[in-house]
Amino acid sequence: MPWTSANRIYAKPSNSSSGEGSIGTNNARVALTAAADSGGRFELSDHGYGKDSVKLLHVHRDGNFHTIREFEVSTELKLTSETAYVLGDNKEVVATDSQKNTVYLLAKKHGVKTPEEFGALVVNHFLYMYKQVVEAKCRVVEYPWERLQAETPHNHAFLFSPTATRWAEISQKRHEAVVVKSGLSGLRVLKTTQSAFVDFVQDEYTTLSDAAERIFSTVVEAEWIYDNMRTADFDNAWLTVKDAILDKFAGPPDVGIYSPSVQHTLYQAEKCVLEKVAEISWIKMTMPNKHYLNIDVSKFPANITKGDPRHHIYQPIDKPAGLIYAQLRRRPKSRL
Amino acid sequence: MPWTSANRIYAKPSNSSSGEGSIGTNNARVALTAAADSGGRFELSDHGYGKDSVKLLHVHRDGNFHTIREFEVSTELKLTSETAYVLGDNKEVVATDSQKNTVYLLAKKHGVKTPEEFGALVVNHFLYMYKQVVEAKCRVVEYPWERLQAETPHNHAFLFSPTATRWAEISQKRHEAVVVKSGLSGLRVLKTTQSAFVDFVQDEYTTLSDAAERIFSTVVEAEWIYDNMRTADFDNAWLTVKDAILDKFAGPPDVGIYSPSVQHTLYQAEKCVLEKVAEISWIKMTMPNKHYLNIDVSKFPANITKGDPRHHIYQPIDKPAGLIYAQLRRRPKSRL
Amino acid sequence: MPWTSANRIYAKPSNSSSGEGSIGTNNARVALTAAADSGGRFELSDHGYGKDSVKLLHVHRDGNFHTIREFEVSTELKLTSETAYVLGDNKEVVATDSQKNTVYLLAKKHGVKTPEEFGALVVNHFLYMYKQVVEAKCRVVEYPWERLQAETPHNHAFLFSPTATRWAEISQKRHEAVVVKSGLSGLRVLKTTQSAFVDFVQDEYTTLSDAAERIFSTVVEAEWIYDNMRTADFDNAWLTVKDAILDKFAGPPDVGIYSPSVQHTLYQAEKCVLEKVAEISWIKMTMPNKHYLNIDVSKFPANITKGDPRHHIYQPIDKPAGLIYAQLRRRPKSRL
Amino acid sequence: MPWTSANRIYAKPSNSSSGEGSIGTNNARVALTAAADSGGRFELSDHGYGKDSVKLLHVHRDGNFHTIREFEVSTELKLTSETAYVLGDNKEVVATDSQKNTVYLLAKKHGVKTPEEFGALVVNHFLYMYKQVVEAKCRVVEYPWERLQAETPHNHAFLFSPTATRWAEISQKRHEAVVVKSGLSGLRVLKTTQSAFVDFVQDEYTTLSDAAERIFSTVVEAEWIYDNMRTADFDNAWLTVKDAILDKFAGPPDVGIYSPSVQHTLYQAEKCVLEKVAEISWIKMTMPNKHYLNIDVSKFPANITKGDPRHHIYQPIDKPAGLIYAQLRRRPKSRL
Repeated sequence: MPWTSANRIYAKPSNSSSGEGSIGTNNARVALTAAADSGGRFELSDHGYGKDSVKLLHVHRDGNFHTIREFEVSTELKLTSETAYVLGDNKEVVATDSQKNTVYLLAKKHGVKTPEEFGALVVNHFLYMYKQVVEAKCRVVEYPWERLQAETPHNHAFLFSPTATRWAEISQKRHEAVVVKSGLSGLRVLKTTQSAFVDFVQDEYTTLSDAAERIFSTVVEAEWIYDNMRTADFDNAWLTVKDAILDKFAGPPDVGIYSPSVQHTLYQAEKCVLEKVAEISWIKMTMPNKHYLNIDVSKFPANITKGDPRHHIYQPIDKPAGLIYAQLRRRPKSRL
Repeated sequence: MPWTSANRIYAKPSNSSSGEGSIGTNNARVALTAAADSGGRFELSDHGYGKDSVKLLHVHRDGNFHTIREFEVSTELKLTSETAYVLGDNKEVVATDSQKNTVYLLAKKHGVKTPEEFGALVVNHFLYMYKQVVEAKCRVVEYPWERLQAETPHNHAFLFSPTATRWAEISQKRHEAVVVKSGLSGLRVLKTTQSAFVDFVQDEYTTLSDAAERIFSTVVEAEWIYDNMRTADFDNAWLTVKDAILDKFAGPPDVGIYSPSVQHTLYQAEKCVLEKVAEISWIKMTMPNKHYLNIDVSKFPANITKGDPRHHIYQPIDKPAGLIYAQLRRRPKSRL
Repeated sequence: MPWTSANRIYAKPSNSSSGEGSIGTNNARVALTAAADSGGRFELSDHGYGKDSVKLLHVHRDGNFHTIREFEVSTELKLTSETAYVLGDNKEVVATDSQKNTVYLLAKKHGVKTPEEFGALVVNHFLYMYKQVVEAKCRVVEYPWERLQAETPHNHAFLFSPTATRWAEISQKRHEAVVVKSGLSGLRVLKTTQSAFVDFVQDEYTTLSDAAERIFSTVVEAEWIYDNMRTADFDNAWLTVKDAILDKFAGPPDVGIYSPSVQHTLYQAEKCVLEKVAEISWIKMTMPNKHYLNIDVSKFPANITKGDPRHHIYQPIDKPAGLIYAQLRRRPKSRL
Repeated sequence: MPWTSANRIYAKPSNSSSGEGSIGTNNARVALTAAADSGGRFELSDHGYGKDSVKLLHVHRDGNFHTIREFEVSTELKLTSETAYVLGDNKEVVATDSQKNTVYLLAKKHGVKTPEEFGALVVNHFLYMYKQVVEAKCRVVEYPWERLQAETPHNHAFLFSPTATRWAEISQKRHEAVVVKSGLSGLRVLKTTQSAFVDFVQDEYTTLSDAAERIFSTVVEAEWIYDNMRTADFDNAWLTVKDAILDKFAGPPDVGIYSPSVQHTLYQAEKCVLEKVAEISWIKMTMPNKHYLNIDVSKFPANITKGDPRHHIYQPIDKPAGLIYAQLRRRPKSRL
C-alpha cells in the first residue's frame, strides 16, 4: 500500500512535547549543548546558519565608463555555542538580517572585484568581528552580463548572456587559511561529428550498438580549488577553464577533435586546465551526455521520407542522460 | 474559512453520472454534437488537439560544414467533427503520435529553413492530407545555438547562447491564407544611466519619488505578424527586431539614449521595427521594469559605509516588477 | 547559415535615430498620439501597464483562530492618453509602485475574501480614483495553503498543498460591467485502467497501434467566465470544478469510468460543470496526454525479465505530450 | 573590466593539443592511468559515470486494486580502470544505456517496494554482475502520488500531491555494507503566531529589531542515514520524520508551540526523530526562514488604511531567506 494519505499528514502531538516548554526557561541548571540536553545520547555533528541569496548589483562609475557585476551572495556562520539550537537563546546570534546588511555594506565600501575576492572579504569580516564565529562561508553566484558593443564597447549598456554561470564558494575556519573554490556552470555545447562510442561491454542487458559516429552534446559543470589565493588571477583562471573545455570539446575549426568517449574528452579538458593554471590544485568536471537519437524512418514508405540526403533529423532526449564526472588533482610531491 | 480541505478533494460521484454510460453506445440515434448531446443547452465554442513539444534537431551536412537548428515543435488540428469529444468516436482523429511522426518526416524530407517556413509546411500538409481538418496550427520554438568561432567559424561545433529565444506560430484555416506570427523572448538588458521617471501622478497612494537617474533593466518579449509571407526574410526580420530593441534601449556607445519612461523606449523600438521591415503589419512588445533599488546606508555609521565614491550598490528585485506593453500597427490606408 | 552571431548582437545606431531627440521637447506643436507622431502611418492598437506579481499574505486573526490566504496580484491600467509612450510625458501615469501600494492598502482595509472579489475591488478602485483610466485589470494567483489538522483543525498552522493552483482575472472597462474569469491550474492525475484509444486514422504516417488498455495521466488546466458576479459563490464554484474533473476522470472508486479518448473525458467534465454551476457561462479545459510507454522486454532473455506478473513497468514521457482542449459554453437562448 | 566577451569564448586551439592524438593509439606502451599519462604530475582522485533520471512507473495490479509508485532513478558506477578517461578505451564500460535497461528490468522482475530497497537491489546487481565495478550508487526520487478517495479509496485513480518529495541515495563499495540515506524535500509550512526572535546581537551592522511575534514559514529539507538496513521500515520512517517536523513546527491544534528561533524548532524536530526511529544514526535538516514582512502603512493617511483590525497584511519575500541547518547524531557509545 502506498505511504501517502492526506489524513496521516498531521498526527496528533504526543504528550511528550508538552514538557518542552520548560526547556529554555531560566532554571538554575539548563543544558547548553545537545549532548547535555539529550542526556548524552545525541550530539550536534554539524550546524550553521546564514542568509541565502542576497541579490546585489555593483556599479563602478568611472566617469562615463560604467562597469557592472551582479551577484547572489549567501553567507553562513558557525558559532561556538549550541544554545540557539538547544535553548532558543540568541544572544550570540548575528542575525541573518545583519549578515545581509554586512554584504551590502562591504560591497559599498570596498566594491566587488571578483566573486572570489569579495567572498574572502566577507568571511574575513565575520571572523574578525565576532569571536563566537568559528567558521564563516560565503557563496557568490554571478549573473552573466556582458557589455554591449558595436564597433566600440558601450559605456553603460549591458546584455545578459548566459552561456555559462560563474560561481565561487569561500570558507574559512578560525586560525586556518581561507579556502577558495570556483565554479563554472551550464556551459552547453554540441558537435555533429568527431564523436564515437564503441567496444563497450556487451551482455544480456545491452541493446545499444556501437556508434562510430554520433552527436555529442553536453552541459558542462566544473569546480576547482586554488591552493594559492595570493597569486591567483581569478577572472583569467575562469576564462582559461572555459576555453580549455571548448578547446578539448570542439578542437580545430576545420577538422575538430575526435572523442572516443565523454570520459576521455572530460579528462583532456581537466588535464589542460591543470597544465595552464598553476594555482589550481584540483578540478572536477561533470558532463552529462545529452542524447540525440536517430529518427528511424524505415517504417515509413520511401515517398514520404526521401529528400535531400544532407538533411539529418535527430530527437533530442531530455531524460535520461548519461552522467560522467571525474576529479583530477596534482599529485602530492611525496608520491612522485 | 479557507476553501481547501484534503477531505473534499474527491467527492463521491453523484448518481447523475451513472446515466452517461449510454452515451457513445451504438444506439440508432446518437448525438454527434455537443449541442445535440446537451439537448440544445451547450455547444463547443472552440476545440483543438495536437502534439506538444516535439523536440527536433536538424543537421544539414554540407561536406565538412555542418549547420544545425534545434526546435520544439507543437502541432494542433481542429476537426469538423465533434464526435471524439461527444461520443469518444476517434475515426476522424489523426493521432497526436502520427502528428509527431509527420513533424519528423517533413523535417527529414524538406529540411528546416526557418521556423516560419517549416511551420507553414506543417500546417499546409495537414490541411492537404486530411479533409476533416478545418484549421491547423504549428508552434516552433528555436534553441539558441550559435556556431563556435575562433579566427574562423568552426565546421561542426556549436555553443548554446540564450541571449534571446526565437519562436513562431503559424496557423491556417481551410480556404484562408496562412498566418505567420514571429516572436522574440527573454532578451535581457540593463543600463546604468540615461533613464529617468519623473512627473507622474502624486497622490495619497504614492510613496515613490521622482527619479532623475535610475537603473533601467528589462527582459523584452516581442511578437509580430507578417502581412506578406512571400517577400519576408524571416531570419533577417528577427535580427532586425533584436537590433532595433538594442538600439533604442542602449543608444550610441558613447552617450547612450535618454529614456523618460519604459513606455517611451518601448514605443521607439516598435516604431523602428515598422519603419525597417515592410512586411510586418503589427508588433507588440512587453517590457517588465526590473527594479534595482538603491541601498539606503544612512542608518549605518560612516566608518562602515565610506569608501570609493565610484562604488554604487543596488538591490535587484525579482518581484514585483513593472510591466509595460503596447502593440503598434500600420494604419489601414482608408484611415490615412 | 544560422542566424546567430555574437558580432551582430549590437549594430551601430543608424543616423536615423539621431533626430529622435527632438521628440518630447517642449515644441509648440508635439504629437500626442502614435498616429500623429508617425505622420499617420502607425497607431497604438493596444497598450497597458501595471505591476506584476505583488506578493501578499492576508492573515485574518479572529481571536485564536487564524485564517490565511497568500496571493500574487498583478494590476494593469489602460490610460486614455498615449503621451507616456509617444512623448515620455508621465503626468497621467499612476506609477506601478503606487499600484503596488494600492493593492496592499485595499487588502489591509477590506481584507481578502476571495481572489475574485478582491480583484473586483482593485479594478473598481482604479476606475473610480483615476478618470484617465479607461480599463483596469487584476490577476490574482493563490498559493495553495491548507490548514493543518489532526483530529481537530489547527488554529494557526498551515501546510502548502499544491495539488492545484487557483487563479482569477478580473477586468473592467469604464462604463461596462466587471468581467470575472477564474481558473484552476496544475491538477495532475493518473489512472491505471479504464482508458483506451482505438479506431483512429491509420495511414502512412501512423505507427501507433490501437490501445484497448492504457495508462491515462494528465495535468488539467481549466478556466471559466461568470455571467453573474452577484450570485456566484466563487470558493464553492472552484471546488465544484475540481470535483467535476476528478469525478469524470476517476469515476466510482470500485469500477472507475471508461475513457475512450482524452477528448471525451474532457467534454464530460465540462458538461458536468455547466450543469452544476449556473453562473458559469463557459468553461475551457486543457488536458495534456502525459504518455506512459510500455517497456518492451522482448529483446531480453526470459531469465532476467520474468517475475511476478502483477508487476508492470512503464516509461513516463515528459515531451512530447498530446494536448487536447475544448471550450463549452451555454447556447444563446435565441439559438435554442 | 568585465571578464565576458563573446570574442573570447573560443580561443584557437594551442599547438600543445596536437600531440594528444598519439594518446590512445596502439603503441606498445600506453599510459593506463592519469598518473602515468601525466608523467606522475596528476591523478584521478574521484570518478564515476552512470545514467541520470531514468523515469519509471511501477504499477502493481492485484486484481482490481492497483498500486503505483513513480520514480526517477539515477545510477552510477565507479570502475577499477581509468582507461576510459585516459585512453578512450571502453572495454570495461557498462554503457549508461545498459544501466537504464537494468533499472527497468530489475523493476520488472522484482517490483519496487520502497525507494531504499529498490536502490539496494540496483547497487547489489551491479557489484555482483561486473567485477570491474568497485562502487555502485543509486539515487531514487519518488513522485508524490496519493490514492484518490471518497468514502472509500479508489481502486486505480491517483492524485499528484506534492506536499513533500521523498528520495533515497543508496551506495555500496565492493566488500562493504550498503549505505542508505533517505530524504524529505520541499515540506512547506507556515504559522501565524507562536514565533519570536529576540535578544540577538545588536551592533552597527544591525537594523532588525526584536520581534516578539512574527510569521514563521519554512520549506523543510531533511536527510538521514540508517545504521541498520535490515530492521528499518523505510515507509514508516519517512512518515515519522514528516510527522515529527509538523509536530515540532505546529504544536497542539489549540495553542501551538512556541518557537524562539528556527534553530530551536529544527533541533526539537531532529531530537524527536532520533527518539522515535532507532535505526536512524543521524539526521540533518535545513530550514530556510521565508520572511514575511509587515507592511508599513504609517506613510498613508488613516482614511485609506483603517479597516477591520483583524486584517493583517504581510509581504512575502522570496530572496533573500535565512538558512538554518544542523545535523544531530547518536553519540558513539564510547563517548557516553
